[in-house]
Amino acid sequence: MNFKTIEWKNNTVVMLDQRKLPTEEVYVTCRTAEEVAEAIKMMVIRGAPAIGVAGAMGLALGALEIKTVNPDDFVRQLQAKADMLFKTRPTAVNLQWGLERMKNSCRGAVTAPGRGNPAPTIQQLKNILVTEAQKILEEDITTNRSLGFHGEKLINDGDRVLTHCNAGALACGGFGTALGVLYAAQEKGKKFAVFADETRPFLQGSRLTAWELQKNNIPVTLITDNMAGWMMKKGEIKKVIVGADRIAANGDTANKIGTYSVAILAREHKIPFYVAAPFSTIDFKIKSGIEIPIEERSLLEVTQLFSGKTIAPEGIQIKNPAFDVTPHPLITAIITEKGIIEKPFEENLKKYYC
Amino acid sequence: MNFKTIEWKNNTVVMLDQRKLPTEEVYVTCRTAEEVAEAIKMMVIRGAPAIGVAGAMGLALGALEIKTVNPDDFVRQLQAKADMLFKTRPTAVNLQWGLERMKNSCRGAVTAPGRGNPAPTIQQLKNILVTEAQKILEEDITTNRSLGFHGEKLINDGDRVLTHCNAGALACGGFGTALGVLYAAQEKGKKFAVFADETRPFLQGSRLTAWELQKNNIPVTLITDNMAGWMMKKGEIKKVIVGADRIAANGDTANKIGTYSVAILAREHKIPFYVAAPFSTIDFKIKSGIEIPIEERSLLEVTQLFSGKTIAPEGIQIKNPAFDVTPHPLITAIITEKGIIEKPFEENLKKYYC
Repeated sequence: MNFKTIEWKNNTVVMLDQRKLPTEEVYVTCRTAEEVAEAIKMMVIRGAPAIGVAGAMGLALGALEIKTVNPDDFVRQLQAKADMLFKTRPTAVNLQWGLERMKNSCRGAVTAPGRGNPAPTIQQLKNILVTEAQKILEEDITTNRSLGFHGEKLINDGDRVLTHCNAGALACGGFGTALGVLYAAQEKGKKFAVFADETRPFLQGSRLTAWELQKNNIPVTLITDNMAGWMMKKGEIKKVIVGADRIAANGDTANKIGTYSVAILAREHKIPFYVAAPFSTIDFKIKSGIEIPIEERSLLEVTQLFSGKTIAPEGIQIKNPAFDVTPHPLITAIITEKGIIEKPFEENLKKYYC
Repeated sequence: MNFKTIEWKNNTVVMLDQRKLPTEEVYVTCRTAEEVAEAIKMMVIRGAPAIGVAGAMGLALGALEIKTVNPDDFVRQLQAKADMLFKTRPTAVNLQWGLERMKNSCRGAVTAPGRGNPAPTIQQLKNILVTEAQKILEEDITTNRSLGFHGEKLINDGDRVLTHCNAGALACGGFGTALGVLYAAQEKGKKFAVFADETRPFLQGSRLTAWELQKNNIPVTLITDNMAGWMMKKGEIKKVIVGADRIAANGDTANKIGTYSVAILAREHKIPFYVAAPFSTIDFKIKSGIEIPIEERSLLEVTQLFSGKTIAPEGIQIKNPAFDVTPHPLITAIITEKGIIEKPFEENLKKYYC
């Protein structure tokens, strides 16, 4: 990849500002947990795995800000920062997962002295958290590469693959999930073409997916969301592959709004529909998709396009659910870093997890 | 209606500039057939019935421009203007229908002398054409009202109706087809709510449908195209009603891109899917939808949104089919000025036609 989605640099977090793409490649530097929270909320960075990493790095920045010398107080203040970061976006489980992992690393160190070690100093706790956040980023990239190389077996020479939203290097620490599968197929020398849905209202498809595929020399054709069905009908699309923001224990998958419609259309046209996501996206605590909270975002995303130009009459009522849930029967397989998981998902996800 | 889509005024054609809505209500005056052709091409005016009217009025303007005193030469020059107007947009059959009707009115007058009348003067031919164009507009409105009052029987109190694109007063001489059904239901005192798909790339839903429904006090909620499936899944949508640009003899219906996907989604959720269109939209010369030419429009519509702001990387490949075809099995009924036509469409459309 010739860009970095997110990076830890001299005790700051540097992110590619995804709101500015594809016309400008600008990096934003966050110095506090609050700045990271704001960046997540404003979608400077987005994509379930990426916000997992961002949340973890945000918490590491938060740790550095804490002034106390009392470990209990440190943990309490850290928890408050974690809560603040957690509230930024409700649907993706990776954010929660990243924050939990950070807190556990800290808890582990605090409870370790029981085994005869001296209690860690606050500085040591801070070092542990900063190291853990960077490890989460590195592991995310490794996980995606491994996911990609499992999934690339599903891609054939001559394929035409539709993707929705951006589940690429921009949505992760790097490499990508759905697009990671395509990058892996490219590394294997396979030739194929991609259709990118523009993905209204935030245009992750046209602004981000089209941009990163083009940058990585994968042929890509941009379509509006409402063209996908017609392209399938005309035989232009052979496979669908998308990412996920949260997967329930039964395989129901929350992903960017519009994914559900694409899944229905894929089944109608007998086209396989794949979900690609790291295991950290699976929320074994919830049985089905009905329990996944769906974030409702600002009406301005719909009425002002992306440009600030108003395209709807003033005072109009809108809906802007950022995600929808695709019921597991519509999913052909779930591609993870542990392998390609087929139906029945409930049974097989558990099997791979243990 | 408190606006006029198109009007004949002192030998000019005045149109509401639909590219400027919803933020500005600006009228454009066309003085020549060429100016009307350009207005149709640039979508100052759009919607199958409306471009039928605009084509006819454009040809009337064209007639007024002709300088000859020779009737044969007049007819030849008129034909050339009709050809020029016909080429502006290929999918809607109403344009062709309107131009044919204009030429027939002229032909009728030219051949009438055989019955003992003197040959018409060029000025008389011009008057006939100008009158005919205005008659086409008036009839379009009458037709739509009659279509609306047939169709309103399908709307119940408490209904939540999805519509795609704009098949409203703005798409016609007035009153509308799909939205005409809703206006008629409103006149009957029914209470219901409408969901409008924004309809990328040209945003006829957010810019036009939302605007005219709001202006006429019908509650409307705007959604992006990719939300329709999820709204159906959540039980928010009870009916779908759309317009048509051309209907084949078997009922296959060309309409704005995205209609096909909505029809698949409606069937999946057991929601009735209605097409509302005047009889002039039915092209009995073609047996099925496969014969309908689909207009491919400029890539700028997709890559620059509606604002001139670029939202896709430079040099990106795009598809921009302006229409798709919904196969007749997905259509519950076709609402026309002659009544609600049910399946089998091939048989029943013919029955109503004769």
